[in-house]
Amino acid sequence: MDFGTVLEAMRPDLKRVEDRLLEETALEYPLVGDILRGLIGAGGKRLRPLLVLLAARAFNYDLDRLVPAAAGIELLHTASLIHDDSIDHAELRRGQPTLNSVLPPEVVIMVGDYMFARSAMLAASTMNPRVLAVFANCLGSICDGQLREIFAARRADVSLDDYQRRIYGKTAALFAGSAEIGAILGDATDKEIDALRRYGGHLGMAFQIVDDVLDLRESTDHIGKPAGHDLRQGTVTLPTMLFLQNRLGDASSLALVEHVLTESAPGDHEVAAAVLAIRRSGAIEQAIELAWQYVEQAREALEAIPEGETRDMLAALAEHAVERHY
Amino acid sequence: MDFGTVLEAMRPDLKRVEDRLLEETALEYPLVGDILRGLIGAGGKRLRPLLVLLAARAFNYDLDRLVPAAAGIELLHTASLIHDDSIDHAELRRGQPTLNSVLPPEVVIMVGDYMFARSAMLAASTMNPRVLAVFANCLGSICDGQLREIFAARRADVSLDDYQRRIYGKTAALFAGSAEIGAILGDATDKEIDALRRYGGHLGMAFQIVDDVLDLRESTDHIGKPAGHDLRQGTVTLPTMLFLQNRLGDASSLALVEHVLTESAPGDHEVAAAVLAIRRSGAIEQAIELAWQYVEQAREALEAIPEGETRDMLAALAEHAVERHY
Repeated sequence: MDFGTVLEAMRPDLKRVEDRLLEETALEYPLVGDILRGLIGAGGKRLRPLLVLLAARAFNYDLDRLVPAAAGIELLHTASLIHDDSIDHAELRRGQPTLNSVLPPEVVIMVGDYMFARSAMLAASTMNPRVLAVFANCLGSICDGQLREIFAARRADVSLDDYQRRIYGKTAALFAGSAEIGAILGDATDKEIDALRRYGGHLGMAFQIVDDVLDLRESTDHIGKPAGHDLRQGTVTLPTMLFLQNRLGDASSLALVEHVLTESAPGDHEVAAAVLAIRRSGAIEQAIELAWQYVEQAREALEAIPEGETRDMLAALAEHAVERHY
Repeated sequence: MDFGTVLEAMRPDLKRVEDRLLEETALEYPLVGDILRGLIGAGGKRLRPLLVLLAARAFNYDLDRLVPAAAGIELLHTASLIHDDSIDHAELRRGQPTLNSVLPPEVVIMVGDYMFARSAMLAASTMNPRVLAVFANCLGSICDGQLREIFAARRADVSLDDYQRRIYGKTAALFAGSAEIGAILGDATDKEIDALRRYGGHLGMAFQIVDDVLDLRESTDHIGKPAGHDLRQGTVTLPTMLFLQNRLGDASSLALVEHVLTESAPGDHEVAAAVLAIRRSGAIEQAIELAWQYVEQAREALEAIPEGETRDMLAALAEHAVERHY
C-alpha cells in the first residue's frame, strides 16, 4: 500500500480533526486568532492525528472518542512549535510568518501556554485518566528534548546517544504517545498498546532523522523554512555528527563545519559552504540508512497487532516517514 | 480562629506537599535544578495547596490522594510565575533572583513549559478525570488573564469589569480550581463542590486585590519585589483605577498617574510620585473595602458545607487574604 492511498482513505476522518482544530483558534485577543488560523490552517502533515486514528482503527474505532484526542495531540504539537519558533527566532513555519515574527515575545509565550492549556482540555475531554497521563508525559518529554538541545548547542562533541535521547524527547515521544493514546481509546490489549507505542517511537525517530536531513538537503522554498537552520543555530544533527565523527571530508571542510557549529553568528556563505560539504560527503546517505533501520523496527513492532488493512496502512506510514521530501 | 492556628494545625500535612514539590526540582540540566530549588524552597505562602487540603478536610480527607494534587497546583502556579517573570523582566521573586535574571530567555521558556508538564503529570497521577479537566481549565484561565493584562497594558481607560475578568483569570480561577479539586478528591457532593469552587473564586479575587494594593502600599524589602511595579509596567490595578475614575487627586496628580501608566519607560521619580499620590488619596482604602466584600461572599458560600473546625479554618483563610501584609 502507498501512503497516498492511506491519506485518501483517512481524509474524511482527518477532516473531522481539522474542523475540531479550527474551533480552537476562535480567540478574541487582537491579531492572535487570525495568526493561529494561518498557522493551523497552513496545515502541516497531520501525521500525529493520523497516527492516533490508525492506532485505534484495528480495534474499536470510535471517532467521537478519537477526534478530540487527535486534535489535542496536534494542538500540543502546535503549541510546542510556537515556543520553539520563539526560541529559535524563526521567521517562517510551514511557509507562513511565525507568531514571533508578528507579535511581541510576551504574547507569543502566553499564546503558546494557552494552546498547551487548550490541548490539555481536549485531552481531558476524553475523561480517560490513562490517556491524560500519556499526554502529560509527552509534554514533559518534548520540553526535556528541547532543553537538551539548548544545552548541547554550539558544541561539536555530541555523541550518538545524546542525539538519540534528544530527538526521542523532542519528537519521537509524541509519536509514541499518539499511537499509545489511539490504542488505549480503541480498547486494545496492554500488549497491543505497548507494541503500538514502540511502533510510534521508532516511526518518530525515523521522522526526526529525515527532518534533520531535509534541513541540509532541500532548498528553503521546498521545506518552508530556511535551509541549514540547525547548523546556523549550532545544533548538531545526525548527518553533521556522522560527517565529523567519521571524518567524511578533508581537513578544511571538517574545520569549516566545526567553526560554523561553534561560532555564535556564522556568516551566510560559511553556512552555505558547510551545508554543501556535508551534502557531498555521504553523511546524508548514512543518516538515511539509520532512519530505515528505525522503520524496520517499527514494522517489527506491528507484528503484535492483527494482520489486515490497518496494519498495512501503519507500515505505509512508517515508510513515508523516510521517503517524504518535505 | 486566627490564621496562625490554621497554619499550625496544617503544618505536618503541608510538609508532605513541600517534600513532594522538592522532588520535582531534581532536574539534571545545568543550573536549572538549583535555581528551581531556590524558587520553590523560598516558599511563597502555599495558600493554594492549603486550599486543596482544607476543601477536602470537611469530607473524606485522604492525604495520599490529596498531596500529589496539591503539589501539582502549586507547581502550576510556579510555572506560571516563571513565564510571568520572564514577560515582566522581573529580577526578584520571593526575595530571590528570578530564573530570567540568571538564565537565557529560551531556557526560561522551556523550564516553565517543563514545570507545566510536571504539574500536569502530578494532576494526572490522581487518575481522576474530573480533577484533570479542572486543572486544564485553570491553566487556560491563567493564560487568558495574562493575555488580557498584556493587551490592556499602557491603557488608562480600563473598566472595573475588564479588571475583574482579568484578575479572575490570572489568580482567582486557580483558587477556585484548588478548592474544587480538594472537594472532588474529598468525595463531597456536587452542591458542596460547587460551593467550595465559588468560595475559592471569591477568596482569589480578594487575594489579588490585596496583592495589587501591596504593590502600591509596601516597600520593596517587605514584598520581596520592587514596589510600584504594576504602575511601571502600565498595568492598571484596582486602586489606580479608583484613583482615576473617582478623581481622587488634583489635576496634576491625575495627569501624573496617567502619564506614568501610558509612558513606555517612566522615570523612577515619576513612578515614586505616582505611588505616593495614590497612597494618599484614599483609593487603597476603597480597594480594600471591595476585597472585604469578596471575603463576605466567600463566607456566604461556606454555608453550604458542614459546620465545624474545617469551615472555621476556611473562613480564617479568607480573612487572612485581606489582613496579610506580604
